[in-house]
Amino acid sequence: VSEPLAARTTIVGVGLLGASLAAAGRRAGVLGHVVGVGRSRANLELALASGAVDEIGHDVAAAVTHADLVILAAPVEACMDLLTAVAAACGRDCVITDVASVKAPMVARARHLHVESRFVGAHPMAGGTATGAAAANADLFAGRTTVLTPSAVTDQGALARVRALWTAIGAEVVEMDAAEHDRVVALASHLPQLLAFALCAALAGGGDESSVRRLAGSGLRDTTRLAASDAAMWTSIARSNRDAILAAMERFDSTWTELRGAVSAGDGAELARIMNEARAFKGRLGG
Amino acid sequence: VSEPLAARTTIVGVGLLGASLAAAGRRAGVLGHVVGVGRSRANLELALASGAVDEIGHDVAAAVTHADLVILAAPVEACMDLLTAVAAACGRDCVITDVASVKAPMVARARHLHVESRFVGAHPMAGGTATGAAAANADLFAGRTTVLTPSAVTDQGALARVRALWTAIGAEVVEMDAAEHDRVVALASHLPQLLAFALCAALAGGGDESSVRRLAGSGLRDTTRLAASDAAMWTSIARSNRDAILAAMERFDSTWTELRGAVSAGDGAELARIMNEARAFKGRLGG
Repeated sequence: VSEPLAARTTIVGVGLLGASLAAAGRRAGVLGHVVGVGRSRANLELALASGAVDEIGHDVAAAVTHADLVILAAPVEACMDLLTAVAAACGRDCVITDVASVKAPMVARARHLHVESRFVGAHPMAGGTATGAAAANADLFAGRTTVLTPSAVTDQGALARVRALWTAIGAEVVEMDAAEHDRVVALASHLPQLLAFALCAALAGGGDESSVRRLAGSGLRDTTRLAASDAAMWTSIARSNRDAILAAMERFDSTWTELRGAVSAGDGAELARIMNEARAFKGRLGG
Repeated sequence: VSEPLAARTTIVGVGLLGASLAAAGRRAGVLGHVVGVGRSRANLELALASGAVDEIGHDVAAAVTHADLVILAAPVEACMDLLTAVAAACGRDCVITDVASVKAPMVARARHLHVESRFVGAHPMAGGTATGAAAANADLFAGRTTVLTPSAVTDQGALARVRALWTAIGAEVVEMDAAEHDRVVALASHLPQLLAFALCAALAGGGDESSVRRLAGSGLRDTTRLAASDAAMWTSIARSNRDAILAAMERFDSTWTELRGAVSAGDGAELARIMNEARAFKGRLGG
């Protein structure tokens, strides 16, 4: 058990990520007293009963006043609003971090609010389709990558504390520029997510839906696993990372158009070329 | 253990499906003596050594001359060529079936060859990315749907024997019109397969590939699982089911275009509508 990195931490949002982070940080001994803040009383009670947090509350401003560390764990647009509220209410030495999926708008908001030096954006590449404190898992981040997106003005002490939190709970920490992070996750995460949503929406509700489901195998089930994800969270991501997502969609479309051309022409050599390029990537990706 | 449905069965192609079907049919006691035919000596030896087949050979014509039942288990275009060879060499009472993923071209070829009455097209909704007799699994078809595509002139005795084979090894048998089968699998199977290939090909080889792989989570891995599939098999399917696949791609494109419009406009209500439609379908599909 390490020295706490923060005597008093406030986590705003005790859903899957927030409650898992609280539980993992407390178990590792790096988070002292943890206050969980949220809108749902039932979810807060669950987080308290499970031991993920020590104390719960509804009022963000009150809960952050005496915090050394504030962690925002809500969908990205909510995190931006929360950052505004927290910046106005927390102390001058309080370090602020978050776990939102899109980072450049958070960094820009921190700059606008004059808290850029003590804001350290973070994005753990972990999660799941389950939601709420009931799904919390102190092992959620172990062995997974967490991206930190410090800027040129980030305080090195603040960065070191946030890095130490993630390292203590087993995450592999990578630092990236916020805009570069957003561009890469648009490809690695947001694009497959939108493809899964679009595939399911395309197959939904037609007169042939029951036939499609009857003939569906594990391939369709795997390809569409992400479509069970929370719509509110993904709506927020789509709005916050619009340009990078549109660029990723365009990159997909370019390959999709090539593939359609090969199907249309019955061009075996071109079909095999695209498929083998895909297989080779999948081999490098694994899974 | 049941009475054999066929005293002498020849399976042409002892890959994953052929060797699994042979192993399952022999274990269930519904296939008597089974001859495996293929091009790869090593794979045939493996099928023999594992007990999936009783005898092996290279010559299709010789191997089917005295067969009561011939099962074609190769990619769809190879099955069409094999059907021509088998129809010329097998006896007049021999029942012919297959496991190819596209059915209308097989039925049309059987008609052209004047073996339509004793050809019973079959498509088991099972498989995997592993290939060859080494991957054979006698439980592969248990609890999975197998589609049979008899035509108006299919001999009822031939249909009953093929149905009994699949039922004996635990498959749930569904009868469908061949063209309807091809249209539905284009949506349920070929479309997700092509999306997985296109997604991987789009992410492959760019200067950012290593960043993309570093930030990839289980979502990208699941969405792209199908991209590990055999390119030769899928090239053959794409050529054989061209029109239905193009229609399925167009159906996807229509939703994809709506989704891109909503991303571009930052239209939260429209994004949520599409995502929730997708989630509802995923809930009905399961997995």
